[in-house]
Amino acid sequence: MQVNKVPTRTLRPAPDARAVDIIDQTALPHAYRILRLATLEDTARAIGAMQVRGAPLIGVTAAYGLALALAQRPDDASLNASLAMLAATRPTAVNLHWALARMQERLSPLDAAERADVAWHEAALIAEEDVAQCRRIGEHGLALLRPLAAKRARLEIMTHCNAGWLACVDYGTALAPVYAAHAAGIDVHVWASETRPRNQGLLTAWELRQRGVPHTLFADNAAGFLLAGGGNCAIDAVLVGADRIAANGDVANKVGTYLKALAAREAGVPFYVAAPRSTIDFDCAGGADIPIEERSGDELRVLHGIDTNGQTGLLRQLALDEATSNPAFDVTPARFITAIITERGPCPATSEGLRGLFPETGNA
Amino acid sequence: MQVNKVPTRTLRPAPDARAVDIIDQTALPHAYRILRLATLEDTARAIGAMQVRGAPLIGVTAAYGLALALAQRPDDASLNASLAMLAATRPTAVNLHWALARMQERLSPLDAAERADVAWHEAALIAEEDVAQCRRIGEHGLALLRPLAAKRARLEIMTHCNAGWLACVDYGTALAPVYAAHAAGIDVHVWASETRPRNQGLLTAWELRQRGVPHTLFADNAAGFLLAGGGNCAIDAVLVGADRIAANGDVANKVGTYLKALAAREAGVPFYVAAPRSTIDFDCAGGADIPIEERSGDELRVLHGIDTNGQTGLLRQLALDEATSNPAFDVTPARFITAIITERGPCPATSEGLRGLFPETGNA
Repeated sequence: MQVNKVPTRTLRPAPDARAVDIIDQTALPHAYRILRLATLEDTARAIGAMQVRGAPLIGVTAAYGLALALAQRPDDASLNASLAMLAATRPTAVNLHWALARMQERLSPLDAAERADVAWHEAALIAEEDVAQCRRIGEHGLALLRPLAAKRARLEIMTHCNAGWLACVDYGTALAPVYAAHAAGIDVHVWASETRPRNQGLLTAWELRQRGVPHTLFADNAAGFLLAGGGNCAIDAVLVGADRIAANGDVANKVGTYLKALAAREAGVPFYVAAPRSTIDFDCAGGADIPIEERSGDELRVLHGIDTNGQTGLLRQLALDEATSNPAFDVTPARFITAIITERGPCPATSEGLRGLFPETGNA
Repeated sequence: MQVNKVPTRTLRPAPDARAVDIIDQTALPHAYRILRLATLEDTARAIGAMQVRGAPLIGVTAAYGLALALAQRPDDASLNASLAMLAATRPTAVNLHWALARMQERLSPLDAAERADVAWHEAALIAEEDVAQCRRIGEHGLALLRPLAAKRARLEIMTHCNAGWLACVDYGTALAPVYAAHAAGIDVHVWASETRPRNQGLLTAWELRQRGVPHTLFADNAAGFLLAGGGNCAIDAVLVGADRIAANGDVANKVGTYLKALAAREAGVPFYVAAPRSTIDFDCAGGADIPIEERSGDELRVLHGIDTNGQTGLLRQLALDEATSNPAFDVTPARFITAIITERGPCPATSEGLRGLFPETGNA
């Protein structure tokens, strides 16, 4: 497989300006475009339109968005309005709110004159921590995968949506153990679900290709067939990311995750959720308390691809005038989850498991 | 809702020629086009390319395809070659093989000179029987739905793929009870899954619209969320069709059916399969014995819609060079099925249940 050389970081401070460069994920896999975010408004728009996406990357991008806002106006009113605008971009992924809360706590006590520089530094720190956490998730995940890999000629991993390096600053969450296995010389193959309606499975296929990891794309509907062993398929484990993990271990993740968890349990296939501390919401008791984003039905009404003239990334309106339901996430109850893999290691998807790994967390 | 007047039969003998007119289902919902099938080859191509689709309609169309072949060449060699060509078009839906076996049994003993007229008549008989069976499935299904409807202001039915009148000659299988409920004045609303990769959910939305039945389209991934009651949704029952029912009650149907059955069981929602006798394969012991069609990965690589110039029904190649897995069906084990609704009434999804309804069936 041809391995392309794309920069390993999905978000980089611009070398010559107060701005950050991101990969426009709405153009992928048809086109690779770098987008410069220079203002708060740029940032909020990029998050809302899913030009940047993935729970960890949204958190880091929001932190930089706040820093960009404070570079222009560092007073309290600007700080509060900017926090509110960024918090309103996406409701489900809690990393966004975690990053904003951390920025607020760091910046509120400061004089306005200090805020811009400290904010920029803090955002960079969050980004570096994300990289380190994802790398450790990869190492802990690899330790879980080794015994599975030892039994077979090829390790078969199913994933959903995109929780790889494109969804983080680097490495990824669900795909971090896959990259660690690949780097360790394990023959690993990924089954990537298309992930309608936004087709983030194409992002997963694209990013795996950049790193030379073999993979197969399938329609979301085929997950049950494949997990049940159809087509001589034998999946060793399902690995997914998370947008918010409740205190009891329930997991909100891209819609369709729950269906894969049901099929994995039925087939006796381990189902792992990989996420850093910033995805865990100890203030949220259970899955029923997680707000689920309902996105525009246009996501079901449009097509995204290449036209007959070779123009890329265009949206094409279907002749559809149908009522739609388009929840972006679903909740997988903790009882379906074999383990949650964090930067501190794996734990059971229970309140005790999560608090055991993060005992410094408050008693909410 | 605006109710359009589209002919009620999906397949009609041409008034002025030995030919049948079908609705080109690959053009829907973007364009309504009638396609004339005048030869065996026309028919085989239309079935293979899914211009006609739906297990019952495939069976009827194949019967007419054989009649068209015999009108040109009625000898034994032509009969056998035509049967073989039609049987090879689609492997999973057994109605095709059932209809061809019936035609063969009727036609083989005859002199070649008689065959063309008898074949045409027999194909018409199969079509009329399909209409009558679907109407009865609707009546029996309505009897099951009435107690559910009595409890609520609106009856909420989830379906998958398209098993309505477009998939049959008229009425449909899974949607026949919905049309019967609608005709009986029950406020019924249908949740239609998109059904990737071929998007037959758009056909379901289109055909429900023609008949004035309210409906909501959703991405396949959202089925678990909706069945679990997400978004204040409360589904009363799942109703699907079938491509082949094994002797033990296991059901092969459009890929993704199994995931909906898992989610329905988890939520305590009844899961019904509606199909006529011709879908039951008493020679097939269980789901593992049903051949599952693997279709071209291009179904995942292309988009079907409307371009910026308003041209409809075009296929658009994505810049994807990915390995794909594209099974067209999956198997739902009998234990997930509340009942199978046939033209003779509902029965448990068991060997005893099926044989109890069809005792005249051989002892295979």
